[in-house]
Amino acid sequence: MDFKVRLFDMEQGKREVVLNSKQARELDYNVLDRVVVRAGKKGVEAIVDHATDSIKEGEIGVYRETAKALELRDGQRVSVESAHRPASLDAIKKKLDNQVLDEGEITTIISDLMDERLSDAELAAFITGIYANGMNSEETIALTRAIYGSGGVLKPGKGAASVHSIGGVAGDRGSMLIVPILASLGLIVPKTCTRAISSASGTADAMEVLAPVTLDLKKTTSVLKKAGACIVWGGAVNMAAADDKLIHVRRPLRLDPKPLLLSSILAKKKAEGAEYVLLDIPVGRGTKVADIEEARELAKQFEGLGKLLDMQVHVVITDGSEPLIQGIGPCFEARAVLEALEGKNNDKLVDKACKLAGIILGMVRGVTHEEGYRIALQQVKSGKALQKFREIIAAQGGKPGVRPEDISTAKHKAVFKAMESGRVGHIDNHAISRVCRTLGAPADKCAGIRLMVEKGDEVKQGDALYELYSDDNSKLGQALKVAKTTALIEVKRVVMEVI
Amino acid sequence: MDFKVRLFDMEQGKREVVLNSKQARELDYNVLDRVVVRAGKKGVEAIVDHATDSIKEGEIGVYRETAKALELRDGQRVSVESAHRPASLDAIKKKLDNQVLDEGEITTIISDLMDERLSDAELAAFITGIYANGMNSEETIALTRAIYGSGGVLKPGKGAASVHSIGGVAGDRGSMLIVPILASLGLIVPKTCTRAISSASGTADAMEVLAPVTLDLKKTTSVLKKAGACIVWGGAVNMAAADDKLIHVRRPLRLDPKPLLLSSILAKKKAEGAEYVLLDIPVGRGTKVADIEEARELAKQFEGLGKLLDMQVHVVITDGSEPLIQGIGPCFEARAVLEALEGKNNDKLVDKACKLAGIILGMVRGVTHEEGYRIALQQVKSGKALQKFREIIAAQGGKPGVRPEDISTAKHKAVFKAMESGRVGHIDNHAISRVCRTLGAPADKCAGIRLMVEKGDEVKQGDALYELYSDDNSKLGQALKVAKTTALIEVKRVVMEVI
Repeated sequence: MDFKVRLFDMEQGKREVVLNSKQARELDYNVLDRVVVRAGKKGVEAIVDHATDSIKEGEIGVYRETAKALELRDGQRVSVESAHRPASLDAIKKKLDNQVLDEGEITTIISDLMDERLSDAELAAFITGIYANGMNSEETIALTRAIYGSGGVLKPGKGAASVHSIGGVAGDRGSMLIVPILASLGLIVPKTCTRAISSASGTADAMEVLAPVTLDLKKTTSVLKKAGACIVWGGAVNMAAADDKLIHVRRPLRLDPKPLLLSSILAKKKAEGAEYVLLDIPVGRGTKVADIEEARELAKQFEGLGKLLDMQVHVVITDGSEPLIQGIGPCFEARAVLEALEGKNNDKLVDKACKLAGIILGMVRGVTHEEGYRIALQQVKSGKALQKFREIIAAQGGKPGVRPEDISTAKHKAVFKAMESGRVGHIDNHAISRVCRTLGAPADKCAGIRLMVEKGDEVKQGDALYELYSDDNSKLGQALKVAKTTALIEVKRVVMEVI
Repeated sequence: MDFKVRLFDMEQGKREVVLNSKQARELDYNVLDRVVVRAGKKGVEAIVDHATDSIKEGEIGVYRETAKALELRDGQRVSVESAHRPASLDAIKKKLDNQVLDEGEITTIISDLMDERLSDAELAAFITGIYANGMNSEETIALTRAIYGSGGVLKPGKGAASVHSIGGVAGDRGSMLIVPILASLGLIVPKTCTRAISSASGTADAMEVLAPVTLDLKKTTSVLKKAGACIVWGGAVNMAAADDKLIHVRRPLRLDPKPLLLSSILAKKKAEGAEYVLLDIPVGRGTKVADIEEARELAKQFEGLGKLLDMQVHVVITDGSEPLIQGIGPCFEARAVLEALEGKNNDKLVDKACKLAGIILGMVRGVTHEEGYRIALQQVKSGKALQKFREIIAAQGGKPGVRPEDISTAKHKAVFKAMESGRVGHIDNHAISRVCRTLGAPADKCAGIRLMVEKGDEVKQGDALYELYSDDNSKLGQALKVAKTTALIEVKRVVMEVI
């Protein structure tokens, strides 16, 4: 059957063609069916959509991806025929039927996903199938391998170490210290990191204040060679690409099935080429993992799966109920890291980083955790970690001489004051993210907040609780409104009631 | 935040806007997020998509639905802000977590679906949630009510009766006989039916050979008043509209969760305004319901749910393993119905129709099934059912005097012959559908096949097994190829082997 092409200069993120709904029904091409579209000797598979008015009988609406693949011109004729149903649909159905998938089936799903052969509805079915029915270790390993194989891979050489936090804690920039500490001791540390998804700043956003992080595979490899370590954005090296494609379907429903959490993180560590991996699972009010029991169960799975992937994975469970540093937002966090490496302030951050670095030294060099901690702390105190950090900054293309005071601050500032007297009971990670996002972080690097109190502090009505920063005055106003309805800092009255 | 509109003259079937991916990420508008787009005093909610190149920073791509709702011009400026997450997403997540939904939650999902506020991915999650975790009676009733309320409703008056077959049997046009039989006895029979989804012909396709079936609510109501019965396409009265929207997401994954099957059928019967409903569940090789046990379970649920919806629902389980008539395809089937009502041939079809009509007479008038059967058969033999059928045809706008021989036949014909001698073991419904679709049915009304043998017949190599008909010679050739690899009629050698 022949159709006349109508080009739409728009990307769809998948290969889709639009047919007139009346004609399509007659021809038995239903919405979400697959067809092969051919022009000359070339043919591509596409998913069918219908339009009642905007496409007439005999026409076919074609978006940019399909047009490019077939080099189509407007008005050109193409032929359309039914395509085979992708095998991955049977595999997805199987998971919905609570059956175990084999490696071939999982590989097929991920490869069809990467080839843009699956619709959003089909991807959602895959994710909900995993969410409802779970995956066993073999399936999770196969999924990890498939995701790992879907993107770029670093080859840092034998004995490389890496670290990753499950996240959820504001200002948890430990890895920006751990990487230079370990690298200053001669370890190779190929650290890739993410940008913020819902928080004020990811490690990539904070590091970007100091140096470019959007480096391709070749450039990252050369940084690793020069500095022995890197702190780059994983998205730029297209790491575990399939994972990114799954995230947008998961987000609206807030679906975070455990096998996907496990395979996503392990695939990325495997793609870094790490042999030794330390994972940090923060627990406590407001973190991703609800309680220590769940964290222990997750830890066991990470370690077991890691072994099957030829990685030595250790897990630390840490207290993640409150922020580690005062300033939250990319610039604040970058400054805190620099200060910490200079030996100034930020003791909680330094302490946590050295404890984690110490455990990794235990894994790689066989020292005790206490010994490892002392070694790590010594690298900070001696300035060797700072020196290594500057080497990394330089290798990635930043200014190695950057000082904390060089980092710019936002144009506008406001203060949020205590509405009543009492004691600080809780500082909330979620609320911090929400206020910082409203202020413009992480896109506005200088946006963020600075906490003026700590948990347990006594405050009087009118005392400053935190400062809000933004380059955009209207956002500052908006954030103040949000702040008023959000218990970012909970002040509890000391005397609750007098009878 | 303001954007410049770029119009794309294309329907999307949902409200979607496209932002530049870099800018959208900075603004924290992710793919599948919801935003409110405002122009002047008007505002609509839309789902975000990203484009890397085709939409520049500061631009917003808008499709026809959104453009129409806001009366947008190309180049106009609109503002965009975050929208609230629809409550239905929490309800969908709840079903994925295997929790029971209340009526309000189910109503919200269906109303968000009708308002095009849910993405395909979210709809797929809802369907897979039902598929994986099921629904109890209260949930199924609430879903039925919500689907019923989503479309047009007939009001035929007290005591109306209807009939429906779950389908899967080629040439099962019983309802085209049952409706006039019952109506000729004074019953009101508001029968709506579907077009073929994957078979050679639906009741609507076959009826359309004799009279228009695409009648709106008003016209259908007037037909009911005139003839006391109708046989119209449910799609035209927009019956159970939500159901249609769910079908396209279900189809690619072949997901047919039982609560959706139940609520889809019951909502349509309820929307017909039927008080007495007979459901036919064909079982046997190749039908939708695998075995009699499953059919019995389904029957129990239909009857119980029907009661809660104030309908008296009875179920018959019938043998659906083979076709009921010789000719398959819209014209063949329309002709078979006319002949049957004229008292010619098609004994199996007449017998089944009278048995089912007899059971409905038992429900409505309290007669025994045997008595009901005799009454029904008498209406056929006396020509009264035929007379009523002609009244219905006339009321719907067809030619009441139509004779079987008036129905046209296809231009091209071929014969498929037995490749070896033996006995006919099975005639396959699925294979019939496949060959008929290839011949052009149901769009080509005259396309189809005519069976030349019955199960149990002895055939010799070279005997005609069936004839193939199409208006399109190339389709005939294609269908012959399909026929060669498809065991439409299984001929078993009588002597299997000689030792």
